Amino acid sequence: MVTSVKSLGVALLGCGTVGGEVARILTQDAEELTSRCGARLELIGVGVRDTAADRGPHVDRSLITDDLAGLVERADVVIELMGGLEPAGSLIESALRAGKTVISANKALIAERLAELSTAAAESRVQFSYEAAVAGAIPILRPIRDSLAGDRITSVMGIVNGTTNYILDAMDSTGASFEDALAKAQELGYAEADPTADVEGHDAAAKAAILASLSLHTAFPLSEVYTEGITRVTAEDIASARAAGYVIKFLAIVERVEKDGEDFAAVRVHPTLLPDTHPLASVRGAYNAVYVEAENAGSLMFMGQGAGGAPTASAVMGDVISSVRRVVAGGPGRTETPTCVVTSLPHSLAETRYSIAVTVEDRPGVLEQIARVFSTHSQSIESMSQSLVTDGEGSGAAVLRIITHTGAEGDLRATVEDIHSLPAVIRKPTFMRVGGN
Amino acid sequence: MVTSVKSLGVALLGCGTVGGEVARILTQDAEELTSRCGARLELIGVGVRDTAADRGPHVDRSLITDDLAGLVERADVVIELMGGLEPAGSLIESALRAGKTVISANKALIAERLAELSTAAAESRVQFSYEAAVAGAIPILRPIRDSLAGDRITSVMGIVNGTTNYILDAMDSTGASFEDALAKAQELGYAEADPTADVEGHDAAAKAAILASLSLHTAFPLSEVYTEGITRVTAEDIASARAAGYVIKFLAIVERVEKDGEDFAAVRVHPTLLPDTHPLASVRGAYNAVYVEAENAGSLMFMGQGAGGAPTASAVMGDVISSVRRVVAGGPGRTETPTCVVTSLPHSLAETRYSIAVTVEDRPGVLEQIARVFSTHSQSIESMSQSLVTDGEGSGAAVLRIITHTGAEGDLRATVEDIHSLPAVIRKPTFMRVGGN
Repeated sequence: MVTSVKSLGVALLGCGTVGGEVARILTQDAEELTSRCGARLELIGVGVRDTAADRGPHVDRSLITDDLAGLVERADVVIELMGGLEPAGSLIESALRAGKTVISANKALIAERLAELSTAAAESRVQFSYEAAVAGAIPILRPIRDSLAGDRITSVMGIVNGTTNYILDAMDSTGASFEDALAKAQELGYAEADPTADVEGHDAAAKAAILASLSLHTAFPLSEVYTEGITRVTAEDIASARAAGYVIKFLAIVERVEKDGEDFAAVRVHPTLLPDTHPLASVRGAYNAVYVEAENAGSLMFMGQGAGGAPTASAVMGDVISSVRRVVAGGPGRTETPTCVVTSLPHSLAETRYSIAVTVEDRPGVLEQIARVFSTHSQSIESMSQSLVTDGEGSGAAVLRIITHTGAEGDLRATVEDIHSLPAVIRKPTFMRVGGN
Repeated sequence: MVTSVKSLGVALLGCGTVGGEVARILTQDAEELTSRCGARLELIGVGVRDTAADRGPHVDRSLITDDLAGLVERADVVIELMGGLEPAGSLIESALRAGKTVISANKALIAERLAELSTAAAESRVQFSYEAAVAGAIPILRPIRDSLAGDRITSVMGIVNGTTNYILDAMDSTGASFEDALAKAQELGYAEADPTADVEGHDAAAKAAILASLSLHTAFPLSEVYTEGITRVTAEDIASARAAGYVIKFLAIVERVEKDGEDFAAVRVHPTLLPDTHPLASVRGAYNAVYVEAENAGSLMFMGQGAGGAPTASAVMGDVISSVRRVVAGGPGRTETPTCVVTSLPHSLAETRYSIAVTVEDRPGVLEQIARVFSTHSQSIESMSQSLVTDGEGSGAAVLRIITHTGAEGDLRATVEDIHSLPAVIRKPTFMRVGGN
């Protein structure tokens, strides 16, 4: 008896760093992949905008095309690595509607249109997978969606952007300013020439929206993610955090918050002080890590490479093999669609601890005035330390660094405003959120 | 239009700590689970040996039965938490052959019969899942099987037994002996009255066999796992490891080893010196963690609670919901069967670094004799330190602690034998393996 192995046509849309690696793996490991998924994966085309560019040794020139729609039409499996909302979105949607298996690593698109594309996949009974969209090689979406499907996730905290983790880590270990650390990151290729998406938090916000949607079984809108980048973090912030036993990490945070018997989602992206004993505190350089808390599982942590060609391609290929196994086995693909409506908690009601820096005239009575403002707003102070100003701002000034107990962001902001209006306060207080306990 | 939700009968076999938690979740979270998986899960029976025992508030007494085979026959979904090879094995096999979805947390059984039970599941086109069998709440088997399905795993190192990690950690932090740390662990409920399965490594060996089978897409026999427990680890071993910058962890190790163009598997369980900077080195107490290296993904780490009722129940319920979603969607369940034959590497050929302790007479020339034995066996020394013996073994004696570069276990053992036969060597040298770099 001759066993014939089914052959499936694979379309690769986009051929940058990750696409090149996917093409390499499809070629180099073809035999092994065939035995693992039970079908031969035949790369039938590589869709790019610029057909003249060199795509490296693993992409046969004859496969290159700029007719993306035509390529999708001929394929059984579509791997979308172009990025951006369009034409990626239309191509994926038409592929799903035509019953093709789709794999994407496009966080911006998925953050915007996850529910809609999942519904399209479910209607066509095909699989739509996107593990590589969050935290590169780290298996995080599948564990959240499947392994924790019978549990209730209460919070997710992730270092999901390697560029900003590299910058903060460099500032921490060398004492460099944000600008110098960014320049170094650009020099080493860890940051792009235009670093806005990373340092302003847009990249992390997209990942936070995806994590929120899957963790809370809902469709969490990207526009509801409170986003604050790392551009205002100073070397001084990092040094004083360290002195107090904290490190500053740029986190994507998803919290399930119960108010009056109803579940809300508090989803935000901002620099966060973490106790230096927290598992996320020791995640260095360009690594990513995600810390998940669930009612029954307790705390889980996942760590690995969050970017780069081969690591991201590993996650893409995991999705490819998993969904092709399903195609081979027969029966519909499986894609989750939202089962809950979870409303976003207004950011002013989100509760956390805070670290506040107040520059004041160094004279008696000031501390008491400041403490009174905190108590007026029912904000409870956990610790306070004072240091004299040495940066030429004038003698007779001191910086108070206050860490609070948990309170609502709205109350904290009101407290900061009122402190700012005290005559002894020299400039507007700055604050940062404290997490991890 | 009335939407009718399908109802599936769930049989729970075994109702200890984990079973009780599974029953609680099925009851308390019924509504949420129904919306997530699209079917109502109805607990139709709890099979136990002792029907008179109290099973807590979440198990309706009328559901208790000792007719396990009859219960399996009536069920759509079978959750096996009895442990042991029989009758669990026969019950699972008959359930799979009858087309029922099966979830198990039974590491001993799965280590023995994974390939066979997976084949039975594949033949009946039903799903057989066992995430909870390794590392409790940590999603590790699904990431290995699915997320890394398009990559090539080169090694897995896991702290997969909480009892032994607790004991070694206690020895490390308090300086206690193995016996005292074990007694403390028993007092706190971290170790059983008969701790053999944990401290002799049988539990970890079963998990190593499962990790090897899934990582290497093969059927790795439990009998081929080299197993050495922690009973001979001394407080002195731990102190001198720490002085050299290492911690001793009890690891399950899977390595893909290429010899003459063919892949072999080196699978072993033993106390291991890890550099104190290794991610696994800081895993404390009863926590579990698994460190995976793959060709494209690079290094990944997974950490969480490896035992306990609720955490293990979380993993079981993740399998339940995932497989029920498949039942609801229709089409065959998916269970991997081995696709490769990977031969076990004879343990004498397994290569690692070693830490060797030699008690010698403290006189000139001894060091040279010992160094000569190492070079005779082509074993390369990385570092050596000497300390005088203070334990009443007599003055004039010293302990040499030698760390080697990578070499084969057979050569190391021959080296140790030859050193033992030197007249200046007072007792048989002991050695421990060094990992993590």
